[in-house]
Amino acid sequence: MQSTGASERQFIGVDVGGTKIAACLVDAQGRILSSIRQLTDETNPEATLDSIANATQGLLKVSKLDAHSIKAIGFGIPGLVDAAQGIGIASVNLNWKNVAVRAGLEARLGVRCVIDNDVRTGALGEARFGAARGLKHLNYLNIGTGISVVILMDGKFFMGVNGLAGEIGHAILEPGGALCKCGGHGCFEAVASGPAIAARAIEKIKSGKASMLKAYSLDGSWRLTAENVFEAALSGDAVAKETLSEIGVLMARAIQTIALAYDPNVIVIGGGVVQGSKPLFMKIQEELQRLADESWVFRKVFTKDLVKLSALGTNAGVLGAAALAADAQ
Amino acid sequence: MQSTGASERQFIGVDVGGTKIAACLVDAQGRILSSIRQLTDETNPEATLDSIANATQGLLKVSKLDAHSIKAIGFGIPGLVDAAQGIGIASVNLNWKNVAVRAGLEARLGVRCVIDNDVRTGALGEARFGAARGLKHLNYLNIGTGISVVILMDGKFFMGVNGLAGEIGHAILEPGGALCKCGGHGCFEAVASGPAIAARAIEKIKSGKASMLKAYSLDGSWRLTAENVFEAALSGDAVAKETLSEIGVLMARAIQTIALAYDPNVIVIGGGVVQGSKPLFMKIQEELQRLADESWVFRKVFTKDLVKLSALGTNAGVLGAAALAADAQ
Repeated sequence: MQSTGASERQFIGVDVGGTKIAACLVDAQGRILSSIRQLTDETNPEATLDSIANATQGLLKVSKLDAHSIKAIGFGIPGLVDAAQGIGIASVNLNWKNVAVRAGLEARLGVRCVIDNDVRTGALGEARFGAARGLKHLNYLNIGTGISVVILMDGKFFMGVNGLAGEIGHAILEPGGALCKCGGHGCFEAVASGPAIAARAIEKIKSGKASMLKAYSLDGSWRLTAENVFEAALSGDAVAKETLSEIGVLMARAIQTIALAYDPNVIVIGGGVVQGSKPLFMKIQEELQRLADESWVFRKVFTKDLVKLSALGTNAGVLGAAALAADAQ
Repeated sequence: MQSTGASERQFIGVDVGGTKIAACLVDAQGRILSSIRQLTDETNPEATLDSIANATQGLLKVSKLDAHSIKAIGFGIPGLVDAAQGIGIASVNLNWKNVAVRAGLEARLGVRCVIDNDVRTGALGEARFGAARGLKHLNYLNIGTGISVVILMDGKFFMGVNGLAGEIGHAILEPGGALCKCGGHGCFEAVASGPAIAARAIEKIKSGKASMLKAYSLDGSWRLTAENVFEAALSGDAVAKETLSEIGVLMARAIQTIALAYDPNVIVIGGGVVQGSKPLFMKIQEELQRLADESWVFRKVFTKDLVKLSALGTNAGVLGAAALAADAQ
């Protein structure tokens, strides 16, 4: 087998998720040259590191690259990550605590490794190759199962003292609202994350409103997702449309706060939930415009291009991980 | 007259307010060695610059200093300020727009001048000499007639793209709440600034609740201030106490959002309003503690020492202006 070295302008990024690992070879323009996807082994931390290393080696093989020709590989890791120390501090999805991820991967791969949190690598991907390309000051608002903001200025993360700057998923958006996983009430994450969208629709149906979404209930237990609500809204279902309208208003209010807090060039919405529904994104934009029409202070911060959907979608993390590798060379 | 040069470790700061100008000679520990106060002439921008220069020259005289011995003087200016260009972009209080403040003062004083916004100099004062001394990452929450946050990290201001980062006085705190000067509804500034505290008490009295504060109404017009509400609360007035309790809950909610947005070492509350009422500050702390007890995410950011009252009070601005001068030398 002929093995060639990686070009100076090709980089390897690996995005580690709770269920899947994606590894890609990326060029300097952010084009994916080759990629592989593989299931994550969550049996224990060593097995997880083995499966990450295995996926990476698989990519090297597919790309006909020799590990010795690679200067660095970038990894996006879920949960709390100490990037400088190379430690995975905690991840609920991977079920690990204080794992020496960087050292473990370097021992397995024989290549210098760089790690960071996967939402931060998503932000880096959008900054380098996506919706925030060429812009100096980015907020990456991740709305999925959880909600948080990554603040990226001049290519540097604004982290705060405890690395928690941007945890506004736990700021109160609806006083006295739904119980959050954090223990609080009415947190942004508790009222407007993916699961919260489904929960809001269920509440409406339980209160007696007719909806096609009732089909997702069986013996009092619900299997409804945000995606189901998005589909029903497109079919004209009144409960689904009302739910998205309310969620859009709540998200716009949170985005207004983010815009006033950080005054960025752009707020990129990633994480899948809003990307799954054009009507929801339009409602957010409509409500933001209404808030800007009202307030001359917000008008100074808001433009039609302030809020954008992720341009890279599910590839944001892996492209950001490749950017980590590029920066380390 | 014997004229001596300023020591290398003495600095001049000037705080320009809408009604008064304060000029101080400050030592390296932030002790005020001499000071003068003088009314601001707001007739027109030239007259205002004359009165600022006049106050500064008065201080030099009182301190027996010669302008030629001074390397730089720092000025805190109200409203929107372009510090780098030395321009007063807009000030409602001084009634000016795009005034070349730095050049105007340098021409009058024959000394290098450094200017910045007065809330930012207040933050700098607290960082250098006050409640945030020795701490790396400060949020200075100014609650007065207006409300805004200054973000100071490693001695540098986090300004945002349009210089509006921290304008969370116009984030919505009470959805559908009172009309704000900005045109929005329920903004932090509209529901919890000094004037909003008085307005909330008046609403309660109008709805029929008995209160000693009724004495501030004459022929349907009110002359009630936040200070009057604070005094009445200390005397046990039920409407005043209820008002402060509600305001404390609202302020705590806003402070929680600030803490999650920036994750600072300390949030210093300046601006006079909260400093005027110990019960209000205690209510804020009590409510923050309750929120931290509920939410494990907020608990990772919150400590008993996270939120502090300004240590410098009305001197924060002038001491911060002196710090500007010190940094320019």
